[in-house]
Amino acid sequence: MKRTALSVLARRTAQPPISWLMQMALARPKLISLAAGFTDNPSLPLRATRRLLNNLLASAETGQPALQYGATAGDPELRQLTAAHLARQDGAQTGVATYSPDRLILTHGSQQLLYMVTEALCDEGDIVLVEDPTYFVYLGITQSRGLRCRSVRIEPDGVDLAHLEQVLESLKKRGELRRVKMLYLVSYFQNPTGVTTSFAKKKAALALLRKYERAAGHPIYLLEDAAYRELRFRGEDIPSALTVRGAVDRVIYTSTFSKPFATGVRVGYGVLPEPLLMAVTRIKGNHDFGTAHLLQRLLARALATGEYDRHLITLHRRYVAKTKVMAEAMQEHLFKHAEWEMPDGGLYFWARLPRGRRSGLKSKLFQSALANDVVYVPGALCYCDDATRRKPDSELRLSFGAASEANLRSGIARLGQAMAKTL
Amino acid sequence: MKRTALSVLARRTAQPPISWLMQMALARPKLISLAAGFTDNPSLPLRATRRLLNNLLASAETGQPALQYGATAGDPELRQLTAAHLARQDGAQTGVATYSPDRLILTHGSQQLLYMVTEALCDEGDIVLVEDPTYFVYLGITQSRGLRCRSVRIEPDGVDLAHLEQVLESLKKRGELRRVKMLYLVSYFQNPTGVTTSFAKKKAALALLRKYERAAGHPIYLLEDAAYRELRFRGEDIPSALTVRGAVDRVIYTSTFSKPFATGVRVGYGVLPEPLLMAVTRIKGNHDFGTAHLLQRLLARALATGEYDRHLITLHRRYVAKTKVMAEAMQEHLFKHAEWEMPDGGLYFWARLPRGRRSGLKSKLFQSALANDVVYVPGALCYCDDATRRKPDSELRLSFGAASEANLRSGIARLGQAMAKTL
Repeated sequence: MKRTALSVLARRTAQPPISWLMQMALARPKLISLAAGFTDNPSLPLRATRRLLNNLLASAETGQPALQYGATAGDPELRQLTAAHLARQDGAQTGVATYSPDRLILTHGSQQLLYMVTEALCDEGDIVLVEDPTYFVYLGITQSRGLRCRSVRIEPDGVDLAHLEQVLESLKKRGELRRVKMLYLVSYFQNPTGVTTSFAKKKAALALLRKYERAAGHPIYLLEDAAYRELRFRGEDIPSALTVRGAVDRVIYTSTFSKPFATGVRVGYGVLPEPLLMAVTRIKGNHDFGTAHLLQRLLARALATGEYDRHLITLHRRYVAKTKVMAEAMQEHLFKHAEWEMPDGGLYFWARLPRGRRSGLKSKLFQSALANDVVYVPGALCYCDDATRRKPDSELRLSFGAASEANLRSGIARLGQAMAKTL
Repeated sequence: MKRTALSVLARRTAQPPISWLMQMALARPKLISLAAGFTDNPSLPLRATRRLLNNLLASAETGQPALQYGATAGDPELRQLTAAHLARQDGAQTGVATYSPDRLILTHGSQQLLYMVTEALCDEGDIVLVEDPTYFVYLGITQSRGLRCRSVRIEPDGVDLAHLEQVLESLKKRGELRRVKMLYLVSYFQNPTGVTTSFAKKKAALALLRKYERAAGHPIYLLEDAAYRELRFRGEDIPSALTVRGAVDRVIYTSTFSKPFATGVRVGYGVLPEPLLMAVTRIKGNHDFGTAHLLQRLLARALATGEYDRHLITLHRRYVAKTKVMAEAMQEHLFKHAEWEMPDGGLYFWARLPRGRRSGLKSKLFQSALANDVVYVPGALCYCDDATRRKPDSELRLSFGAASEANLRSGIARLGQAMAKTL
């Protein structure tokens, strides 16, 4: 056969950059992975989940609906509880229209929602503005769907507003603003840098996007990915972009119960303005016509009984302890070679090597680390292809999610040895 | 704002035709729905699921992995068990390469797999051959993605081979064969007609597709959707198209645990030839990077312990009883107005009105039935848009899945009254 039957999308879709790191970890049991974005194993809510499921499945009245199909947009009770949960985080009254359950959709993790929102907004060749660096699986979506990314620099309090304006202005000059559909921000403990966007910056970014809408000829949305929001273990929560006055019709807010509760229970959610919500709900109808009901009913119980909130307390305590271990090990083994900030939440340390030192898959450092049975995510994988700047290649994403304290210590020690050897 | 920011796909994606039937059912509690494709509630495996989850979550060793992320293609043990389960249904040895776990992917229901396979094979404007009528949610996918459908008539033992050849030939003459990517068959107790494709027809259809591949210039796949295969409650199972000699690189086989086990536990699966498997796995990485692990571990236990097989026996007994009730009620109330066959499996009766009588949403029959508090799926919703034939509008899909025996009786009686009044 001369030709393949595969679609353009399929032929374009690249191997996820991290997939061979994952395979590596499976194939080499001694390898310590500081790469995976898995959450902490010992603090997974085993007993709570067992108790909740036991109660849920104890009677036909509550058990049968849990084992049956539900509605495409999600279980009404979980939509209501989730909306209230989010309103509470944002310090809003539950009655406020912004947090109406009718504006909320539940999905198989927030990843699925990121995919469907992108499907609903972007045609091939459209432009998404992303942080530089950003969540690499989101870059996978844009790559697969033939979108163009324009990178916006970030600062310790989030997106660099001057650069955002500069990027928008240059797109305007080149007549490409009509292809710009959204700005994608991972706004809490960003993957990979750990940076949290300040409220002032969310507000200013929305105003900037609004300013360029006239030239774009259509709304430019802010897609706020708050996946790590509830993994804050220090400091005060920051309100979401949904609370910015007059911006509610421009904010797509996505978050998840997977990371704070259990990654094996894949339930994410989003609050979307019309007409996007309707489009995404219809698309969801074609994808799977609804998220697994058992998982939704489990989470509804977890929220309603307070188990969810109780679990968060345990979880935060765990992550405080793990970051302490990680920070101490890094201080001991990496301080000569790299710089980093202590995260207040999320799952990652972001380590920067001195100018000119490389961390990429082909670098001596990565190869030496691998030989020494430790892997990390090279920073370069988190930068989109953007010809307007050179792709940085001197950073490391180091996760403290999955590894045990002992492995965090050994892993960092091994990485320190690799650094000492190669840098 | 002059323009919408929505993508072409989003603007094109229609409201699912059945969604307002579902809303109707929620809004009018007295309404009996013979429309929904839900499964039987009382036979949902409540006790088995509770027991299995209790055991699974009793220890950290088995519980933690269930609550943690898994691999994109699915849990290795469930892939292995599923491959063996399928090999057993097909009467093959488990060691046979066709049923290698490496060829299998697990998804959030087989619906998700249908979506991703279509994404991986079809560009806008490509052609999918579908049965006439066929599964309407699949038609939703093709509509949303801008595909063209060509309908192939069906007979009591499956696809009409002469018509299939005629369709292929006419596409060849018009130079459109290169746009044809696959034939989509719901091969067991088809939704909506209940027709099961004979093995001889699967084999012959594959040979026909192969014959036209040279002119197409690429493989033409058979997508065998076996979602209802394990809902057989009478007669002997038929081997899948995977068993057709020499055809394994052209068959995409999809099925699900949702319908036979629990629709609230959304796990589907598929066996795919390369390079399609790789493409779909990468696409799955972007959609959600893996099916909820808790559901997969639950099903692995259900299969490994024999609970799954035991449940099937109960389920089949239930459906035999329900079809009996349904058939008796239909015989009593509908026999003057419609014809049907007794299904050997699946969830549906397919009733045909005499020539010229209409069953569509706007028909007197449908309106009268609705006024009488009973709804069905009008057959017309299950036919693709295909200008080469007039869309039939005189059939009804009547589900015995969700409704209780009492409601099946009342529902059919009410439908009989509506028929008596309007036909």
